[in-house]
Amino acid sequence: MTTEVLPGARALLEGAKTASRALARASAQLRDEALAAIAASLASHSPQIVAANSEDLARGAAEGMAEGLQDRLRLTPERIAALSEAVTQIRALPEPVGDVVRGMTLPNGLQVSQIRVPFGVVGAIYEARPNVTIDIAALALKSGNAVVLRGGSAAQSSNEVLVSLMQEALTSVGLPPAAITSVDEFGREGAQAMMKGRGLIDVLIPRGSASLIETVVQESSVPVIETGSGVVHIFVDDTANLENAVEIIHNAKVQRPSVCNAVETVLIHRAIANAVLPVVAERLQASGVMIHGDEAVCAIVSGAVPATEWDWGREYLSLDVSMGVVDSLDQALEHIARYSTHHTEAILTGNMDHAERFLKEVDSASVIVNASTRFTDGGEFGFGAEVGISTQKLHARGPMGLPELTSTKWVVRGQGQVRA
Amino acid sequence: MTTEVLPGARALLEGAKTASRALARASAQLRDEALAAIAASLASHSPQIVAANSEDLARGAAEGMAEGLQDRLRLTPERIAALSEAVTQIRALPEPVGDVVRGMTLPNGLQVSQIRVPFGVVGAIYEARPNVTIDIAALALKSGNAVVLRGGSAAQSSNEVLVSLMQEALTSVGLPPAAITSVDEFGREGAQAMMKGRGLIDVLIPRGSASLIETVVQESSVPVIETGSGVVHIFVDDTANLENAVEIIHNAKVQRPSVCNAVETVLIHRAIANAVLPVVAERLQASGVMIHGDEAVCAIVSGAVPATEWDWGREYLSLDVSMGVVDSLDQALEHIARYSTHHTEAILTGNMDHAERFLKEVDSASVIVNASTRFTDGGEFGFGAEVGISTQKLHARGPMGLPELTSTKWVVRGQGQVRA
Repeated sequence: MTTEVLPGARALLEGAKTASRALARASAQLRDEALAAIAASLASHSPQIVAANSEDLARGAAEGMAEGLQDRLRLTPERIAALSEAVTQIRALPEPVGDVVRGMTLPNGLQVSQIRVPFGVVGAIYEARPNVTIDIAALALKSGNAVVLRGGSAAQSSNEVLVSLMQEALTSVGLPPAAITSVDEFGREGAQAMMKGRGLIDVLIPRGSASLIETVVQESSVPVIETGSGVVHIFVDDTANLENAVEIIHNAKVQRPSVCNAVETVLIHRAIANAVLPVVAERLQASGVMIHGDEAVCAIVSGAVPATEWDWGREYLSLDVSMGVVDSLDQALEHIARYSTHHTEAILTGNMDHAERFLKEVDSASVIVNASTRFTDGGEFGFGAEVGISTQKLHARGPMGLPELTSTKWVVRGQGQVRA
Repeated sequence: MTTEVLPGARALLEGAKTASRALARASAQLRDEALAAIAASLASHSPQIVAANSEDLARGAAEGMAEGLQDRLRLTPERIAALSEAVTQIRALPEPVGDVVRGMTLPNGLQVSQIRVPFGVVGAIYEARPNVTIDIAALALKSGNAVVLRGGSAAQSSNEVLVSLMQEALTSVGLPPAAITSVDEFGREGAQAMMKGRGLIDVLIPRGSASLIETVVQESSVPVIETGSGVVHIFVDDTANLENAVEIIHNAKVQRPSVCNAVETVLIHRAIANAVLPVVAERLQASGVMIHGDEAVCAIVSGAVPATEWDWGREYLSLDVSMGVVDSLDQALEHIARYSTHHTEAILTGNMDHAERFLKEVDSASVIVNASTRFTDGGEFGFGAEVGISTQKLHARGPMGLPELTSTKWVVRGQGQVRA
C-alpha cells in the first residue's frame, strides 16, 4: 500500500473494509431486506433520479458527448423501473455465500470442503452508466460484499442520488451505509486510491472504454477483472440460412448499438456475397446503418464507404458496421484472431463441422452458432443482472453474475490428524 | 505490450503462444503420452539430474544460501522418483478440458453451456525449487496449456536439464517443444518480458519469497495468481486436547519447516498456558526449535528468546516459532487478522462454537480445526500435485490443481434467435 493516496480516499476504503466484515456476519435475510428497501426506494424516487440524470445529460450534451454515450447515460422512468425490477430479481436469486463447491473426506478422515465466501470489498470503475451503479451494488450486496464505486464525472449527479438512496436503504435495515460508497468526490484521485488499495479492495472491475480498462489493468496492484470492450464479429458461412442471417445481423447491430455485445464486423463467405450482401445492406441501411466495406463489399453495396485498417479494430458503439468478404472459414478465423477483443463472435452456418470448428478455435468469452451476439448478457443468461462481461480468462469469463462475485475458502475438520 | 523487452525473450513468448494453439488442438491422449514420456525420462535420467543439481547446491552453499533454501533446492534420487511418480499421477487425473461447468436451455430455445478450456500460456516465476519446474509443466500439459518458466539463477543447472528432458519428451510424441520453455537464459530480463507479456501470457504465477511475489504483483500487467507466503497460525483454545495439541504443533513446525504451510506462530489460551506450554516447548526444543516468545511465554519456557514485532509477521521457514499467550478466542482472531498472510490457520479446540466462529471469521485460504496446518497441500487434497497455494481471492484460493489452470468459454447454439 503506497501512502501517496489522499487520506480521505484511504479512510473511505478502510470504512468499506470494516463494513465488509459486518456484511459477512449479516444474515442473508438481512441483506435481502436491504435489497428490497433499495428496489422500493428506486421505484418511489424516480422523479428525483430523472432530475439528477437530466443535469448530467444536459452537461454531456453541452460538452458534445456522443449519442451512444448519451444513451448509456440516460435514465428514463422506464429504465428506473427496470432497474428496480432487476434489484428485486437479484434479491430472489439463490444466496451464493456458503455454497459448497467441492468436498471430500480424505483417507485419514479429514473432512475437506471448499465453500463460497464473499470477496470482501469489490471496487468498480466505470463511466457514464448509472445503471451499473445499481447493478453492481445490488449484486455485491446479494453476494455479501461491500462495494466502492467510481462512476465518473459524467454521471456524477445521477450516481450521487443513487448511492445516497442505497445508503438510506442500508441504514433502514441496520446495515452500515459504508457498505455501498463512492469515491467520486475525490475525482481521479479516488480512482487512483482504488487502484493502489491492495489489502483494502479485493477485486477491481473496470467497465467502460478500452482506454479506461487499459489504464486500470496497467496501474492497478489490486487484482482486476477486465471487462467489456467488444469488437464483435459475425461470420456468414456459405451454407447460412439467408433469412435468419438478415434478421440476426440486423438485430445484433441495430437493437442496441451502444453496448458491447452489438456486432461491429460482419464477414461474408464469397460464395454467397452476391446473394446476401444486397439484402443485408438494404435492411441495415433502412435502419440508418453506415456500412464500412472492403473492396468486394463496396463493389456490391451502394452507399458503402471504404473500410480502413482502423475500422477493422473498431468498437463503433454506433450505427456503423464494417463488412468484409472472405474466401473460407479459415480466412474468417484468421481475421477474427487478429481483430477480436475476445468478447463474442458468432457463425451463421448450416455446416455442423464448421460450427464445431468455430466454437473450438475462436478464443472468445462467448461463441455462438446461428443466433444474435446480443445474447451474451447476464440478464439473458438468467443471472438477474450482470457485473460486466469479462474478456479475460482469469476467475470469470463472459457475463459475470453472483458466483463470479465470490471467492472460496477451504474448510478442514479433523480429529487430531498430523501429516506423515 | 511494451517494446522494451528483449527481442529474443519476446520471440520465445510468441513461440509459446503458437505452441499453445497446437496443444489446444492436440488430443488428451497425445498429451497423456507426453506426460508418460516425461515420467519415464525423469526416472531414467536421475543421475544426470542429481549431477546438475549438485552444481546448483555447491554454488548455493558457497554463496551462503540458508539451509531452508538449500533443502528446497535439493533433488535426491528419492525426490526425483517422487517427481516422476507425481507426473504419472497427474497423467491419471481426469482431463479437465471440455468439462461442462454449467449449462441451460433458455426459454427461447438457445442452448448455453460453459465449458472448460485451457488458458493458453501459463507463466511461472519461482526461485530455487526445481520440483516446481516439473509440477507446473506437468499440470500445464495435462490441462492443455503451454508453460513458460523462470526458475531463477540458483536452480539454473537443474532446471536446464529438466526442461531439456521435458522438451525431448514432447518431441518424441510429436508435440512442439516450445510448449515447455524457460526464459532463464535471459536472466532478469526474461522475468520482465513475462510480466509485460500481456496477450502472450494468459496468467502468471509467482511462487517464492514475499519480495518476489510483491515484485510480480506490482510490475505485471499480465493477470497474476499470488501464491505462497505463509505466516501460518495455530490457536490452542482452553478446551483443546493436550496430547493432540502437542503432536499437531510439532508436526506443523518440524515435519518440513521450509514450506509455506508450516506453522510460524502458535497462540495459546491463558487458561491452559501453564499446562500446555512446558510440554509443547520441550517437544519442540528436543527437535531443535528456537521459541520466540512473548513475556508470558518467556516466563514459563526456559530457553525461549523474546519475540519482537518483527517476529510476529515473520515467515521463518526454519526451526523457529513465535509463541504468544492470549486471553480469548477474540484476541486470537485479532492477532491473526493483523499478522496473517491469509494462507492457513488452525484452531485446536473442543468447543464447537469456537470452531465455527474461527472457520467463519478467519479470512484465510484454508481454515482448519484440530489438525496440522501441513494438510493445506494439493497432493494431500488429491490434486496429484499443485501449481502453488493461492493466497489471493481471485480465480483460485488455496492449493491449485488442474481446474485452476483452466478458463471457461460460453458456447451458445441457436436456430436463428434474435433478441427482443
